[in-house]
Amino acid sequence: MADDTVMRTMLFDFYGELLTEKQREYFDLHYNADLSLAEIAESSGISRQGVWDIIRRAEGTLRETERKTGLVKRYGAQRETVAAIEARLTRLEAVTDGEARQLVREIGQELQALKG
Amino acid sequence: MADDTVMRTMLFDFYGELLTEKQREYFDLHYNADLSLAEIAESSGISRQGVWDIIRRAEGTLRETERKTGLVKRYGAQRETVAAIEARLTRLEAVTDGEARQLVREIGQELQALKG
Repeated sequence: MADDTVMRTMLFDFYGELLTEKQREYFDLHYNADLSLAEIAESSGISRQGVWDIIRRAEGTLRETERKTGLVKRYGAQRETVAAIEARLTRLEAVTDGEARQLVREIGQELQALKG
Repeated sequence: MADDTVMRTMLFDFYGELLTEKQREYFDLHYNADLSLAEIAESSGISRQGVWDIIRRAEGTLRETERKTGLVKRYGAQRETVAAIEARLTRLEAVTDGEARQLVREIGQELQALKG
Protein backbone atom coordinates (compact mmCIF):
# COMPACT_ATOMS: atom_id res chain seq x y z
CA MET A 1 0.00 0.00 0.00
CA ALA A 2 1.45 3.36 -1.03
CA ASP A 3 2.15 6.00 1.61
CA ASP A 4 -0.40 8.29 0.05
CA THR A 5 -3.08 5.63 0.37
CA VAL A 6 -2.23 5.06 4.04
CA MET A 7 -2.38 8.81 4.65
CA ARG A 8 -5.74 9.12 2.90
CA THR A 9 -7.16 6.27 4.99
CA MET A 10 -5.92 7.92 8.18
CA LEU A 11 -7.29 11.31 7.20
CA PHE A 12 -10.68 9.77 6.45
CA ASP A 13 -10.66 7.86 9.75
CA PHE A 14 -9.82 10.97 11.76
CA TYR A 15 -11.79 13.68 9.98
CA GLY A 16 -14.32 11.88 7.73
CA GLU A 17 -17.24 12.99 9.90
CA LEU A 18 -16.38 16.61 9.14
CA LEU A 19 -17.29 16.06 5.48
CA THR A 20 -20.78 16.38 4.02
CA GLU A 21 -22.69 13.11 3.65
CA LYS A 22 -22.18 13.07 -0.11
CA GLN A 23 -18.45 13.86 0.14
CA ARG A 24 -18.03 11.08 2.68
CA GLU A 25 -20.00 8.59 0.58
CA TYR A 26 -18.16 9.20 -2.71
CA PHE A 27 -14.73 9.41 -1.05
CA ASP A 28 -15.42 6.11 0.71
CA LEU A 29 -16.72 4.38 -2.43
CA HIS A 30 -13.75 5.53 -4.50
CA TYR A 31 -10.82 5.15 -2.12
CA ASN A 32 -11.98 2.51 0.35
CA ALA A 33 -14.35 0.36 -1.74
CA ASP A 34 -12.22 0.97 -4.86
CA LEU A 35 -15.10 1.90 -7.20
CA SER A 36 -14.14 3.88 -10.31
CA LEU A 37 -15.43 7.40 -10.90
CA ALA A 38 -17.47 6.00 -13.81
CA GLU A 39 -19.12 3.42 -11.57
CA ILE A 40 -20.01 5.99 -8.92
CA ALA A 41 -21.27 8.37 -11.60
CA GLU A 42 -23.51 5.69 -13.08
CA SER A 43 -25.09 4.67 -9.79
CA SER A 44 -25.54 8.23 -8.54
CA GLY A 45 -26.80 9.79 -11.75
CA ILE A 46 -24.28 12.65 -11.88
CA SER A 47 -21.35 13.12 -14.26
CA ARG A 48 -17.94 11.54 -13.81
CA GLN A 49 -16.52 15.06 -13.50
CA GLY A 50 -19.14 15.90 -10.87
CA VAL A 51 -18.14 12.87 -8.81
CA TRP A 52 -14.47 13.78 -9.10
CA ASP A 53 -15.13 17.41 -8.02
CA ILE A 54 -16.88 16.18 -4.87
CA ILE A 55 -14.11 13.70 -4.02
CA ARG A 56 -11.38 16.27 -4.68
CA ARG A 57 -13.12 18.82 -2.47
CA ALA A 58 -13.50 16.19 0.27
CA GLU A 59 -9.79 15.40 0.12
CA GLY A 60 -9.03 19.14 0.26
CA THR A 61 -11.04 19.48 3.47
CA LEU A 62 -9.33 16.46 5.05
CA ARG A 63 -5.84 17.70 4.16
CA GLU A 64 -6.58 21.26 5.27
CA THR A 65 -7.90 20.00 8.62
CA GLU A 66 -4.69 18.00 9.09
CA ARG A 67 -2.54 20.95 8.05
CA LYS A 68 -4.21 23.02 10.77
CA THR A 69 -4.47 20.49 13.60
CA GLY A 70 -1.64 18.00 12.91
CA LEU A 71 -3.53 15.27 14.80
CA VAL A 72 -2.77 12.46 12.33
CA LYS A 73 0.92 13.36 12.46
CA ARG A 74 0.80 13.38 16.27
CA TYR A 75 -0.83 9.96 16.17
CA GLY A 76 1.88 8.67 13.81
CA ALA A 77 4.58 9.72 16.27
CA GLN A 78 2.72 7.86 19.02
CA ARG A 79 2.65 4.72 16.91
CA GLU A 80 6.43 4.88 16.55
CA THR A 81 6.83 5.24 20.31
CA VAL A 82 4.53 2.29 20.93
CA ALA A 83 6.58 0.18 18.49
CA ALA A 84 9.79 1.14 20.31
CA ILE A 85 8.25 0.17 23.66
CA GLU A 86 7.08 -3.14 22.21
CA ALA A 87 10.61 -3.93 21.04
CA ARG A 88 11.94 -3.31 24.56
CA LEU A 89 9.16 -5.40 26.09
CA THR A 90 10.17 -8.34 23.91
CA ARG A 91 13.76 -8.07 25.19
CA LEU A 92 12.44 -7.65 28.72
CA GLU A 93 10.30 -10.77 28.52
CA ALA A 94 13.40 -12.76 27.56
CA VAL A 95 15.32 -11.72 30.70
CA THR A 96 12.49 -12.01 33.28
CA ASP A 97 10.47 -14.80 34.84
CA GLY A 98 7.75 -15.32 37.44
CA GLU A 99 5.89 -12.21 38.60
CA ALA A 100 8.08 -9.88 36.53
CA ARG A 101 7.37 -11.74 33.31
CA GLN A 102 3.66 -11.71 34.10
CA LEU A 103 3.78 -7.92 34.50
CA VAL A 104 5.66 -7.59 31.21
CA ARG A 105 2.91 -9.55 29.46
CA GLU A 106 0.17 -7.44 31.02
CA ILE A 107 1.93 -4.28 29.86
CA GLY A 108 2.17 -5.77 26.38
CA GLN A 109 -1.59 -6.35 26.37
CA GLU A 110 -2.38 -2.86 27.58
CA LEU A 111 -0.09 -1.44 24.94
CA GLN A 112 -2.31 -2.95 22.24
CA ALA A 113 -5.06 -0.50 23.24
CA LEU A 114 -2.78 2.36 22.15
CA LYS A 115 -2.71 1.00 18.61
CA GLY A 116 -6.46 1.24 18.13
CA MET B 1 -9.62 22.89 37.94
CA ALA B 2 -13.19 21.95 36.95
CA ASP B 3 -13.77 19.18 34.40
CA ASP B 4 -15.37 21.67 32.03
CA THR B 5 -12.25 23.83 32.13
CA VAL B 6 -10.01 20.85 31.38
CA MET B 7 -12.27 19.86 28.49
CA ARG B 8 -12.24 23.41 27.08
CA THR B 9 -8.45 23.50 27.25
CA MET B 10 -8.21 20.15 25.46
CA LEU B 11 -10.70 21.20 22.77
CA PHE B 12 -8.74 24.40 22.15
CA ASP B 13 -5.44 22.49 22.01
CA PHE B 14 -6.80 19.98 19.50
CA TYR B 15 -9.02 22.12 17.30
CA GLY B 16 -8.10 25.74 18.01
CA GLU B 17 -6.50 26.16 14.59
CA LEU B 18 -9.86 25.43 12.97
CA LEU B 19 -11.27 28.66 14.43
CA THR B 20 -11.03 32.08 12.81
CA GLU B 21 -8.20 34.28 14.06
CA LYS B 22 -10.59 36.48 16.05
CA GLN B 23 -12.40 33.50 17.60
CA ARG B 24 -9.09 31.97 18.60
CA GLU B 25 -7.80 35.25 20.07
CA TYR B 26 -10.87 36.06 22.18
CA PHE B 27 -11.36 32.46 23.31
CA ASP B 28 -7.71 32.33 24.38
CA LEU B 29 -7.83 35.69 26.19
CA HIS B 30 -11.00 34.77 28.06
CA TYR B 31 -10.44 31.12 29.00
CA ASN B 32 -6.66 30.75 29.03
CA ALA B 33 -5.45 34.24 29.99
CA ASP B 34 -8.55 34.73 32.21
CA LEU B 35 -9.47 38.20 30.91
CA SER B 36 -13.09 39.29 31.50
CA LEU B 37 -15.46 39.98 28.61
CA ALA B 38 -15.41 43.66 29.64
CA GLU B 39 -11.59 43.78 29.45
CA ILE B 40 -11.53 42.15 26.00
CA ALA B 41 -14.33 44.46 24.82
CA GLU B 42 -12.43 47.52 26.01
CA SER B 43 -9.15 46.59 24.32
CA SER B 44 -10.79 45.45 21.07
CA GLY B 45 -13.32 48.23 20.66
CA ILE B 46 -16.38 46.01 20.27
CA SER B 47 -19.24 45.47 22.73
CA ARG B 48 -19.14 43.01 25.61
CA GLN B 49 -22.02 41.15 23.92
CA GLY B 50 -20.07 41.10 20.66
CA VAL B 51 -17.08 39.52 22.36
CA TRP B 52 -19.29 36.94 24.04
CA ASP B 53 -21.00 36.02 20.74
CA ILE B 54 -17.61 35.35 19.16
CA ILE B 55 -16.40 33.24 22.08
CA ARG B 56 -19.66 31.30 22.24
CA ARG B 57 -19.52 30.58 18.53
CA ALA B 58 -15.89 29.45 18.87
CA GLU B 59 -16.82 27.04 21.65
CA GLY B 60 -19.69 25.75 19.52
CA THR B 61 -17.29 24.95 16.68
CA LEU B 62 -14.85 23.21 19.04
CA ARG B 63 -17.58 21.08 20.65
CA GLU B 64 -19.19 20.23 17.31
CA THR B 65 -15.83 19.12 15.90
CA GLU B 66 -15.33 16.86 18.92
CA ARG B 67 -18.87 15.50 18.67
CA LYS B 68 -18.13 14.48 15.08
CA THR B 69 -14.56 13.18 15.39
CA GLY B 70 -14.25 12.08 19.05
CA LEU B 71 -10.47 12.64 18.94
CA VAL B 72 -10.20 14.28 22.38
CA LYS B 73 -12.18 11.41 23.89
CA ARG B 74 -9.90 8.90 22.13
CA TYR B 75 -6.88 10.74 23.52
CA GLY B 76 -8.38 10.64 27.04
CA ALA B 77 -8.71 6.85 26.81
CA GLN B 78 -5.06 6.64 25.76
CA ARG B 79 -4.03 8.69 28.78
CA GLU B 80 -5.79 6.19 31.04
CA THR B 81 -3.99 3.29 29.37
CA VAL B 82 -0.63 5.03 29.74
CA ALA B 83 -1.36 5.59 33.46
CA ALA B 84 -2.20 1.88 33.87
CA ILE B 85 1.06 0.90 32.15
CA GLU B 86 3.02 3.30 34.35
CA ALA B 87 1.55 1.68 37.46
CA ARG B 88 2.66 -1.77 36.25
CA LEU B 89 6.13 -0.43 35.36
CA THR B 90 6.55 0.83 38.93
CA ARG B 91 5.74 -2.64 40.26
CA LEU B 92 8.02 -4.18 37.64
CA GLU B 93 10.95 -1.96 38.60
CA ALA B 94 10.61 -3.20 42.19
CA VAL B 95 10.98 -6.86 41.19
CA THR B 96 13.76 -6.55 38.61
CA ASP B 97 17.44 -5.69 38.61
CA GLY B 98 20.38 -5.42 36.22
CA GLU B 99 19.55 -5.42 32.51
CA ALA B 100 15.83 -5.97 33.14
CA ARG B 101 15.55 -2.95 35.41
CA GLN B 102 17.42 -0.85 32.86
CA LEU B 103 14.90 -1.87 30.18
CA VAL B 104 12.02 -1.02 32.53
CA ARG B 105 13.44 2.46 33.03
CA GLU B 106 13.90 2.99 29.29
CA ILE B 107 10.29 1.97 28.69
CA GLY B 108 9.23 4.43 31.39
CA GLN B 109 11.08 7.22 29.60
CA GLU B 110 9.58 6.35 26.22
CA LEU B 111 6.14 6.26 27.78
CA GLN B 112 6.49 9.94 28.69
CA ALA B 113 6.36 10.81 24.99
CA LEU B 114 2.84 9.42 24.86
CA LYS B 115 1.68 11.98 27.41
CA GLY B 116 2.66 14.96 25.27
